[in-house]
Amino acid sequence: MRIITYSKDGASGVGVMVDDTGFVDLGKAAPNLPPSLRGILEMDGDGLGRVADAVEGKAADLSLDDVVLEPVIPEPQAIWALALNFEMHLEETRLTTSSEYPQIFLRMPASQTGHGQPLLCPDPEIAKPFDYEGELAVIIGKTGRHIAAGESAPYIAGYSIYNEGSVRQFQQHNRQFGLGKNFEKSGSFGPWMMTPDEFGDVDDHTLITRLNGVEKQHASLSEMVFSVGDVIAYLSTGYALRPGDVLVMGTPGAIPPPDDWEPGPNDSKRVRGRTHMNPGDTVEVEITGLGTLTNPIAADGWTP
Amino acid sequence: MRIITYSKDGASGVGVMVDDTGFVDLGKAAPNLPPSLRGILEMDGDGLGRVADAVEGKAADLSLDDVVLEPVIPEPQAIWALALNFEMHLEETRLTTSSEYPQIFLRMPASQTGHGQPLLCPDPEIAKPFDYEGELAVIIGKTGRHIAAGESAPYIAGYSIYNEGSVRQFQQHNRQFGLGKNFEKSGSFGPWMMTPDEFGDVDDHTLITRLNGVEKQHASLSEMVFSVGDVIAYLSTGYALRPGDVLVMGTPGAIPPPDDWEPGPNDSKRVRGRTHMNPGDTVEVEITGLGTLTNPIAADGWTP
Repeated sequence: MRIITYSKDGASGVGVMVDDTGFVDLGKAAPNLPPSLRGILEMDGDGLGRVADAVEGKAADLSLDDVVLEPVIPEPQAIWALALNFEMHLEETRLTTSSEYPQIFLRMPASQTGHGQPLLCPDPEIAKPFDYEGELAVIIGKTGRHIAAGESAPYIAGYSIYNEGSVRQFQQHNRQFGLGKNFEKSGSFGPWMMTPDEFGDVDDHTLITRLNGVEKQHASLSEMVFSVGDVIAYLSTGYALRPGDVLVMGTPGAIPPPDDWEPGPNDSKRVRGRTHMNPGDTVEVEITGLGTLTNPIAADGWTP
Repeated sequence: MRIITYSKDGASGVGVMVDDTGFVDLGKAAPNLPPSLRGILEMDGDGLGRVADAVEGKAADLSLDDVVLEPVIPEPQAIWALALNFEMHLEETRLTTSSEYPQIFLRMPASQTGHGQPLLCPDPEIAKPFDYEGELAVIIGKTGRHIAAGESAPYIAGYSIYNEGSVRQFQQHNRQFGLGKNFEKSGSFGPWMMTPDEFGDVDDHTLITRLNGVEKQHASLSEMVFSVGDVIAYLSTGYALRPGDVLVMGTPGAIPPPDDWEPGPNDSKRVRGRTHMNPGDTVEVEITGLGTLTNPIAADGWTP
């Protein structure tokens, strides 16, 4: 099952995909269910089971073209994100991290937008560069504390894709990432949540990031240093994971350029072409078997 | 005006203090206003002005003894916290920080509780020590971006007190503080929000932290390295501050022990007596002219 959060004419809703474009409007199919995915996950009992029952056999009543996609969970209680969770990203950044404990920071809801919506590139007078980070997102479905890594499966409601857009200059202002990972609509989360029965084993999937169609990242999710279970075990030693919480599992490194690569004046020496995102670009993060999260890049022209 | 968020018989409400114990129940005095302080601050127009009008001349209808105090804003969109914002704390920790940019990290709503409620001390098998950090909290009242430090006053709805309780061992697991600043109910926020007209100038106030009645921190808020205006200016370069957002302004250092201090076996050499919080202790953070945030410490005995 693939579940979306959308808005249409200013009202938000939850939908269940029947194919790659059409979906059942849950507000119509199950008017008694809460009107948000977080609300459905917070229900006592099997909220997702009730969703599945409500849409069974129904035809699509709306298409993705009719609506605006919102972040899969627009306002989670917590967005826990991982730094340096792939060896290849550790090597390319030449940064160090603990091999014993995941490196965790937080993103705020306002820093995320939905599939198809513009990621906002800061004015270069304020900060540059603005970088993509393609990542697996995990959505928690059940409250839990002190969960062993091997016992984490029942706490996972589903999987999605995150572009954990980063404003490097602010990230490096000080020791804590702070605002550098939390610029207004600098990240995206979507297009949908896929339930674990459909997604299968995390290790069997590949993450690919493309900037204007050129592959920049391509890695198996089996290369993560700390697994989803490891992170659930770590966080739940101190914190009760809550329905709708999001884990953003860290980004792989960049694809190294071919041996005969001749970088142009604006190109990175480490990656084919530009590594940074500028207004007018289009960025895609694909996770095989899950889908593709696509966003145009626009200039951040804040008006109150 | 001093505004509280409380719960009674499982329902939450907003109240306005008429003296140090009695308050007007806003649900009764102004049933048309939103039922949360965040909701009131998010209203178009002057929400706090409507609160003031609604309670004018009214007698208290409830006492603090009748209710449970919740965090002043139980679920803010963002809790931005500062590390190392007092010279004396920099000196005692021997840590370094940028002198140009504030060091900012985030706390999640689940990590906070209200005045009078227990702060949860982790099981020593999981993590120790558990430390107090008395701090000024600032509550944002108005959406804003690109706010100059000198123009920040209209964006401040009021002030409160934060005990930014910290699990040092987890904070030091890796480069980002992550879970170390986000253990379940490890911090507290209250007892109320005081509006700026009553609070006056931040620099005129003193912060005092006491553990079991013994003073541990005592510093003028004029000693902050980055002022409230500086932090609002910094954050609003990248993020639109939103009504109900909380800034937690950093903790001063500890009071050095007197020259003739002879530390006992469980005492710190840098502070009189223990610096850490254990179950059975009581911690108070006072800000002169604002109030005192008091919490007992209890063992974190999570049950689902």
